[in-house]
Amino acid sequence: MKRRVFLKGAATASAAAAASTFAAPAIAQDRHEWRMALTWPKDTPGLGLIAQNVARRMETFTDGRIKIKVYGAGELMPAFQVFDATSAGDIEMYQGVEYYWQGKHSGFNFFTTVPYGFTPQEHFAWLLYGGGQELWDELSADFNVKGFLGPSTGTQMMGWFNKELNSLDDFRGLRYRVPGVMGELYRRLGAAIVNIPVGEIFQAMQSGTVDAVEWVGPWADTIFGLNRVAKYYYYPGVHEPGTAGSFGINKGVWDKLSKADQELLTTCIQAEVYLGTSEYKARNPAALEKIKADPKIEIRRLSDGILTEIGNQAGELLAEIGNQNDINKRIYESFLAYRKGQIEWTDMSEFAFLQARALPYKYG
Amino acid sequence: MKRRVFLKGAATASAAAAASTFAAPAIAQDRHEWRMALTWPKDTPGLGLIAQNVARRMETFTDGRIKIKVYGAGELMPAFQVFDATSAGDIEMYQGVEYYWQGKHSGFNFFTTVPYGFTPQEHFAWLLYGGGQELWDELSADFNVKGFLGPSTGTQMMGWFNKELNSLDDFRGLRYRVPGVMGELYRRLGAAIVNIPVGEIFQAMQSGTVDAVEWVGPWADTIFGLNRVAKYYYYPGVHEPGTAGSFGINKGVWDKLSKADQELLTTCIQAEVYLGTSEYKARNPAALEKIKADPKIEIRRLSDGILTEIGNQAGELLAEIGNQNDINKRIYESFLAYRKGQIEWTDMSEFAFLQARALPYKYG
Repeated sequence: MKRRVFLKGAATASAAAAASTFAAPAIAQDRHEWRMALTWPKDTPGLGLIAQNVARRMETFTDGRIKIKVYGAGELMPAFQVFDATSAGDIEMYQGVEYYWQGKHSGFNFFTTVPYGFTPQEHFAWLLYGGGQELWDELSADFNVKGFLGPSTGTQMMGWFNKELNSLDDFRGLRYRVPGVMGELYRRLGAAIVNIPVGEIFQAMQSGTVDAVEWVGPWADTIFGLNRVAKYYYYPGVHEPGTAGSFGINKGVWDKLSKADQELLTTCIQAEVYLGTSEYKARNPAALEKIKADPKIEIRRLSDGILTEIGNQAGELLAEIGNQNDINKRIYESFLAYRKGQIEWTDMSEFAFLQARALPYKYG
Repeated sequence: MKRRVFLKGAATASAAAAASTFAAPAIAQDRHEWRMALTWPKDTPGLGLIAQNVARRMETFTDGRIKIKVYGAGELMPAFQVFDATSAGDIEMYQGVEYYWQGKHSGFNFFTTVPYGFTPQEHFAWLLYGGGQELWDELSADFNVKGFLGPSTGTQMMGWFNKELNSLDDFRGLRYRVPGVMGELYRRLGAAIVNIPVGEIFQAMQSGTVDAVEWVGPWADTIFGLNRVAKYYYYPGVHEPGTAGSFGINKGVWDKLSKADQELLTTCIQAEVYLGTSEYKARNPAALEKIKADPKIEIRRLSDGILTEIGNQAGELLAEIGNQNDINKRIYESFLAYRKGQIEWTDMSEFAFLQARALPYKYG
């Protein structure tokens, strides 16, 4: 269902600028005024500020020729309507997470993260140099959108729980907020899944509407107060090993940009992948310390038995999704082959280093 | 020892442009023509092309107002003279690796990578959000240079050896090409250390001048043919867990840029950190397959005993370097504290995920 979004004084600056290109003096050509709507509050540390930084830099570097006004979730429309609004051209751009659109097409999951899939670095490699972006472009074009990878949160936590997870049975009947393909995964384990925007999860947990929520990790979770409404904090988040955010631009709007402007925007977003991914890595340790110091919270590692069974369920589910249609088949096969090669290299490099770093030498 | 570098028709375009700012029309203001000299051949895949991409983008985005001409190692000066030349203002910019300058100041090692130190993501986090860049700026300013982090190669391999490494004794008398603080580390284990630019290591290995060389990893190493001149390929490269390249700009030249131009160049380099780091991750698996398929090469993992002893040596060496002078003390303490916090979070996120991913579930 697509809804038109009616905006006060909604301008079609881009179209006007395009039409006047030949008449205008060189300096006034290619002026663009865009609206970017987010799926979270505008000032959310990390996510929201990343979007604002892209907008600010574009305006600086073009001396005001390209202006992107940033709107938080709910300001122009509800959080999960930003994709449709961009697709329809009611706004020019959104910031979100591609697995939010899995109801439109299950293939979108692969461009965010899938259970037991890529680490953040492996995901970046696949998208940039392994054919991932081309598959994403093909899928998004069907929705009149051009997608860009945003920063990765890194490997996430399994989430906040008010019930213990000692065996697979404990997932049965669990009312759990978890988005994307992971929702279906836990549904198969018997959980009752809901997906609600981040702005509502604290309230849902506090009121007991849900028993468990999954958001990101220590830093992002404490921003939304989740450490105040749950008893257990489980890891590792094998269902989201490297969750990448995204930006989407209306394809008609994108295609009308000059090549140089396309590359400038691409560069600003690429810089933000580095900055944002690093910021998640940077902010988590202090938040983790705070959580560890709270006697009301227990941090727990899931057992190998549960992790193995989640792996089996994930393998089965992804194979099903990978067989749903032609493009999913190609995405899934590309993903699987790339994962195999990356695992061999990661095992010999970063994984082997992390194992060595844990040896009992004297340091510091 | 500083050497002036005399260039044919060496222009001082920046200075001239700065002097004429007030007289020139707006469009001609702030024109800059820079020379960037690299420590490797200009067309080296990865490294060299990263530098060229920064230059190309800057020229595109400023409509030719800022031009950076890229020179490979040896074109203007020998590889390891680019720092002095930038410091003296003979050229405006270099691309290299900060540990190459450890002979000038041992503190530089920490801004590249140190044995058993950070993963690439941890290193980025420290520099951007943990005070690392401020310390680097302070150190570089003494040399009239402003430094920028370049892409990371990821965790490296231990290197190529024509002798087996079965115990610590095997390092004794080994003629080993290895740069930075790691050279000193293996020297303490009895090795005879040389540091030569990458353009010369194939020849040194082939002629038997050295018994072992350390460069980067499968992709970068096969580009320079190292797989054709050695029998053993050892991992993990605990001495270089996340080697980051660098750019350096003459500080006077940097300070004269407008704030907007400074941010544009910063953005272009930041984008390249994402692109370059991802490219190393992307290209290694295919190169590793090729190496694995070669019956003349054995890929071997170092024993835990050797790895632990290297850890002890590294811990001792870094503590010594960290006590050499005031700024080293502050760098070392910042590094150690940050590493402690990051290890706690990495262990719970990416490391815990990699362990889970290795469990025996059915997938694909």
